[in-house]
Amino acid sequence: MGAFLLVIFVCMLGLFGAGALAAADSGPRKHAEGQYDASTNTYTVNAGDDLIEIAERFGTTVEELEKTLNKQRGDKILAGQTLVVAERAAAADQADPLPSWNDGPAKQAIVDFVKETTTQGSPKFVPVAERIATFDQDGTLWVEHPLYSFVVYALERVPDLVKAKPELAKVAPFSTVLEFLKGDHAALAKLTLPDLEKILAATYTGRSVDAFTAQATQWITQAKDPRWKRLYTELVYQPMQEVLKYLRANGYQTHIATGGGQDFVRVYSSRVYGIPPEQVVGTAGVLKYEYDKDGKPFLFKEPKLLLNDNDAGKAKGIHLMIGRRPYAAFGNSTGDRQMLEYTKAGDGARLSMILLHDDAKREYAYGPARGLPDTKVGTFTQALYDEAQKQGWIIISMKDDWNRIFAFEQ
Amino acid sequence: MGAFLLVIFVCMLGLFGAGALAAADSGPRKHAEGQYDASTNTYTVNAGDDLIEIAERFGTTVEELEKTLNKQRGDKILAGQTLVVAERAAAADQADPLPSWNDGPAKQAIVDFVKETTTQGSPKFVPVAERIATFDQDGTLWVEHPLYSFVVYALERVPDLVKAKPELAKVAPFSTVLEFLKGDHAALAKLTLPDLEKILAATYTGRSVDAFTAQATQWITQAKDPRWKRLYTELVYQPMQEVLKYLRANGYQTHIATGGGQDFVRVYSSRVYGIPPEQVVGTAGVLKYEYDKDGKPFLFKEPKLLLNDNDAGKAKGIHLMIGRRPYAAFGNSTGDRQMLEYTKAGDGARLSMILLHDDAKREYAYGPARGLPDTKVGTFTQALYDEAQKQGWIIISMKDDWNRIFAFEQ
Repeated sequence: MGAFLLVIFVCMLGLFGAGALAAADSGPRKHAEGQYDASTNTYTVNAGDDLIEIAERFGTTVEELEKTLNKQRGDKILAGQTLVVAERAAAADQADPLPSWNDGPAKQAIVDFVKETTTQGSPKFVPVAERIATFDQDGTLWVEHPLYSFVVYALERVPDLVKAKPELAKVAPFSTVLEFLKGDHAALAKLTLPDLEKILAATYTGRSVDAFTAQATQWITQAKDPRWKRLYTELVYQPMQEVLKYLRANGYQTHIATGGGQDFVRVYSSRVYGIPPEQVVGTAGVLKYEYDKDGKPFLFKEPKLLLNDNDAGKAKGIHLMIGRRPYAAFGNSTGDRQMLEYTKAGDGARLSMILLHDDAKREYAYGPARGLPDTKVGTFTQALYDEAQKQGWIIISMKDDWNRIFAFEQ
Repeated sequence: MGAFLLVIFVCMLGLFGAGALAAADSGPRKHAEGQYDASTNTYTVNAGDDLIEIAERFGTTVEELEKTLNKQRGDKILAGQTLVVAERAAAADQADPLPSWNDGPAKQAIVDFVKETTTQGSPKFVPVAERIATFDQDGTLWVEHPLYSFVVYALERVPDLVKAKPELAKVAPFSTVLEFLKGDHAALAKLTLPDLEKILAATYTGRSVDAFTAQATQWITQAKDPRWKRLYTELVYQPMQEVLKYLRANGYQTHIATGGGQDFVRVYSSRVYGIPPEQVVGTAGVLKYEYDKDGKPFLFKEPKLLLNDNDAGKAKGIHLMIGRRPYAAFGNSTGDRQMLEYTKAGDGARLSMILLHDDAKREYAYGPARGLPDTKVGTFTQALYDEAQKQGWIIISMKDDWNRIFAFEQ
């Protein structure tokens, strides 16, 4: 994730329409309440369950569950039906655990790393307890162009802010965002960096953790990307999902280390990636412990930064919340530099990988490394590219290394 | 953990001798490098392994491993021998998973809580992914009197500081601590709170994370408590170890939420409690990302507080590092109040328990709740006791509820 948020808005003019709000199927989820049998890792479906609820309950993904259904794919799940809910170690035995990856140095590096760190007797064997892998989110696990979805969220929350406080409709920068959302793309160019900070603060803080979570949950289950007309949570890179599962099947913990808001990513990380809230490191604000009118305590999000989980902040956040140096790290931009460097500097086998968006046709192409178009959203500079080569980080070419980008593609 | 550190020193005079330093067997650990078979959860012992290394590798405890050895208990482990290393869900089926607890309301509350949150069809059933339990450490999981071991560590590090910088020997407060360590108990009374902060900063910060970890590891594997003449890591409450295992066997994650230094507790939490570094929430300082002379990055501990994990800080730290409200929380003093309150305020079945040290004979007796002697180390006020009763927190009486305190007792 890049740092120069102001310039984002210039870049996104013309790329990003204002009609991104789209109604979808659901609000906050209830729990899957069927029976789980720990001895066989099977779950018996309850009437009214859906796969998303079941996936959330067991910390797996809908896609993983669909695999276990095999012949029933496409069918509705039925009450009384039995699902295998544990992520199957069998994935490690698959002929090819990374089918969306083309053969090449990137795929080979992942397979070699897993082999040498998990094979008994290997000089680079890593004990299970130390198998930590960290993943940047925006631009590494899912699409970040034309604009980080966490910023889209902030902009699209403005109408609700105005509904609650109508006087804001005439006050900049909220009035400017309203003009933009009504279709005046040029309005966005008026926003300054302090304006954007004001909007982020107004939408991410100044409320309880629970209220924020409810609002973000409602948005993320409805909001769609304007290019693919799909939920943001569908714009996840299938090859990276395979890496997450392959690593977990080999005893690795997979953590997110995101420059986005920690509480925002936690809203969907279980369901989308199989990564539970306690494995999400992210940008976090100061909290205040307060009481409601009934004397019940709650946590209030103060408009003050505690951890900026970008750049060196990623290494610091990883130490604070995980306490171990990762053996593998995946990123895509200058904001991931220190995480990749810190990971690679450890003893033994360490894998640092960096994704280059060089596929204008299937996704986006941006750098400015390798002469690709410059951008302030997920900047990958030539200096970073040179450093990757010097330090032995593996560069992933989206165009050459991935034969499939999204799960919804056939 | 209490807040008034200055007064600690007055309290500890006469209770705590200066001869607490004692050489033990070992320095930092190497890894257990034998073969692990994931399909059977068995580990084949390598020549040179010891149980501590094996326990660390698999995130379990030495005691748990000893149980799996049964008839070989007391014997040396042999190369080629096979151990079952996964914590056995079978523990849940034991006739009595809490043998060190006397029958009574405290034990019953734990058993009832586990039953109602893990039994299918129970209206208070909790999905596996949400089963979080948090434990204060000092005074809840192990002995905190006459002085928190993390403060003892700071005092006993002073001679090393002086060795590195001889001029400190004549500078207060370091000179004062040296006098105390030489046997002049009255010297400690001269220390002010800023003095103590200076000593804590000088021993916990101003060095790399790796250097701190190496120093703390060396100390904790050697330093002994003056009353029992045992390593501090042996002064763990056996009834709480049983609760940790009982909860884990029932799908709960067990996290520490300590007022002590997060990096300090992480040094031994895996080995002692089966709790890995990523499940230790604790008081944490600001980090700086730096490079050594070879250009390798490292994290430097700055003398500046990021999170004071006491009082409301415990609820905040739990949200920051876990991201879910616990279903169960265990504490023993005013510093745990908000964690217990926050836990209990959640929906459904929530268990908040608080340990009263009322056993002067087998351990210590302090309050001042219930007329017990007052203390500034792990203060349990009458107001806290009254609140516990009002809020439905369960009070554990060490004297009445525990039939055994330590694992080394027969």
